[in-house]
Amino acid sequence: MTDFAMIEQAAERLAQVVRRTPILTSPFLDEIAGRKIYLKAECLQHTGSFKFRGAWSAISALPAHIRKKGVLAFSSGNHAQAVAYTAKLHGTSATIIMPSDAPSIKIANTRHLGGDVVLYDRVRESRDEIGARLSTERGLHLVKPYDDPDVLAGQGTCGLEIAAQVPEDEADVYVCCGGGGLTSGIALALETAAPGMRVYPCEPVGFDDVSRSLKSGRIEQNAKLSGSICDAIVTPSPGELTFPILKRLCGSGRTVTDEQALKAVKLAFERLRVVLEPGGAVALASALFNSTSTKPVVVTASGGNIDPELFKRALAIETPE
Amino acid sequence: MTDFAMIEQAAERLAQVVRRTPILTSPFLDEIAGRKIYLKAECLQHTGSFKFRGAWSAISALPAHIRKKGVLAFSSGNHAQAVAYTAKLHGTSATIIMPSDAPSIKIANTRHLGGDVVLYDRVRESRDEIGARLSTERGLHLVKPYDDPDVLAGQGTCGLEIAAQVPEDEADVYVCCGGGGLTSGIALALETAAPGMRVYPCEPVGFDDVSRSLKSGRIEQNAKLSGSICDAIVTPSPGELTFPILKRLCGSGRTVTDEQALKAVKLAFERLRVVLEPGGAVALASALFNSTSTKPVVVTASGGNIDPELFKRALAIETPE
Repeated sequence: MTDFAMIEQAAERLAQVVRRTPILTSPFLDEIAGRKIYLKAECLQHTGSFKFRGAWSAISALPAHIRKKGVLAFSSGNHAQAVAYTAKLHGTSATIIMPSDAPSIKIANTRHLGGDVVLYDRVRESRDEIGARLSTERGLHLVKPYDDPDVLAGQGTCGLEIAAQVPEDEADVYVCCGGGGLTSGIALALETAAPGMRVYPCEPVGFDDVSRSLKSGRIEQNAKLSGSICDAIVTPSPGELTFPILKRLCGSGRTVTDEQALKAVKLAFERLRVVLEPGGAVALASALFNSTSTKPVVVTASGGNIDPELFKRALAIETPE
Repeated sequence: MTDFAMIEQAAERLAQVVRRTPILTSPFLDEIAGRKIYLKAECLQHTGSFKFRGAWSAISALPAHIRKKGVLAFSSGNHAQAVAYTAKLHGTSATIIMPSDAPSIKIANTRHLGGDVVLYDRVRESRDEIGARLSTERGLHLVKPYDDPDVLAGQGTCGLEIAAQVPEDEADVYVCCGGGGLTSGIALALETAAPGMRVYPCEPVGFDDVSRSLKSGRIEQNAKLSGSICDAIVTPSPGELTFPILKRLCGSGRTVTDEQALKAVKLAFERLRVVLEPGGAVALASALFNSTSTKPVVVTASGGNIDPELFKRALAIETPE
């Protein structure tokens, strides 16, 4: 079970390699939201998302004789790239199971980073079964995207940085939430490092398993598992390891529409000069378009791997002046 | 005359407010260039360009009684936004003289940041004359875009950060160059802080006044003053204050085509998830497409204020895989 000490240990393993991503602000965004927004730009992390933190944390914690046999991961793309790149930096191999409808840039990048990509059908096949089979057959260590204590500790290092970088004692912290690895990691880190900050998971409408789970008090499933432009944060349900942490530490979930996510992508382009993917923009979208509080808010911008065609769609949207 | 001590003093004035922009890297870009690329992401600076450094350095150095009368600047956009925002943070007014063909986003942003914008015709009118007249009539202090020792010292702080952040003793440093403020400031900073790094000015083809001036040994003029998508770095000639520094410290100039600049914009989007304007991408373009060295290279990404339409043009360009 991940705790604060594990997050600090992960931070030590990451220290020489992780990018300490900046906090970005804009008076234009503050005006739209009616509150001060601090954006934690994890889209600028290695491989374009926070996932590098968890992948490095987990793979660097493996005993050398296990790591050298190679690692395995299943992912819609960002975890895939992070695991492939981390494996490469460690001089070992990575087999990556990806849904066939993942953005082509993510599949291409994962291959380019040295990952051996195995595609599967997100609706008809179970990635867990494929993962289990390949793990047994090839003797590979499975690096889960969120239900792994070391992955979770790695994502928590993002929370340590937020606590150190944001000059507020009291703030809301909106986090783009899929399986809950980043959200629960940040919440655990802030519980100790910045107890005046409270975490709220943010999700796309129609894929709000975490919001509904927090409401009902037990793990709820998504009805659909594809069809969102926020592919990076579409997961079947919150994790078994992450959900108890989310339940204990987080406020209620927030949801935004695809159009709101795309508007946030455009505003991040115009006002902060960073590239976000829609799934990495739902926290910003929540702060801009779905909040009434005037309290300062930290938003994670969790990823920036977006196809040019989808980015063009975002650029075509009208945004507030 | 700006020297290293003045740059250090500017860094002290800037310390509490400047964004220490990150150094970004990508194995994909290194492969295209055949050399290690470190990108200094000044597009993430306040108001979207390095110009904030010089504006803050100069305006914060003014005696309070002069500053409170208001400041004046002429600029194609990035210096304008930086001066307007700095004036606002200091609680004083800013009058900004801008060319009528400046990107509309830059004009709109300057107004939104509180700047009183006066438009002029870049070809038929002299911005210097308009500036001198308004300065006299309204009693405003003119903040020049580069030929001002305090502005130059401010831009030099970017060089101090490069010296501290880049883990190389020997490297080329490619800088997007207009009037030479950033280029000479960085060169001065590195002369002392990282003497193994050598600066090379980068310009668009057809607007290569600095490259030609370095070759001939005296200040040369550009034939045209408009018509480039790299508007941010189109100036009549190197400055009287900057040119002697460029001449003493820099290697020969490098030029890139508009298409190469746009390709660099797209690659920065894909591989680094930052938004660059073409004028802010010429240094990256030079490293990617116009260099044969295999030495590590630091490239400044000097600005990221680009209209969505032009960004779409960049996204449509084919780039190396």
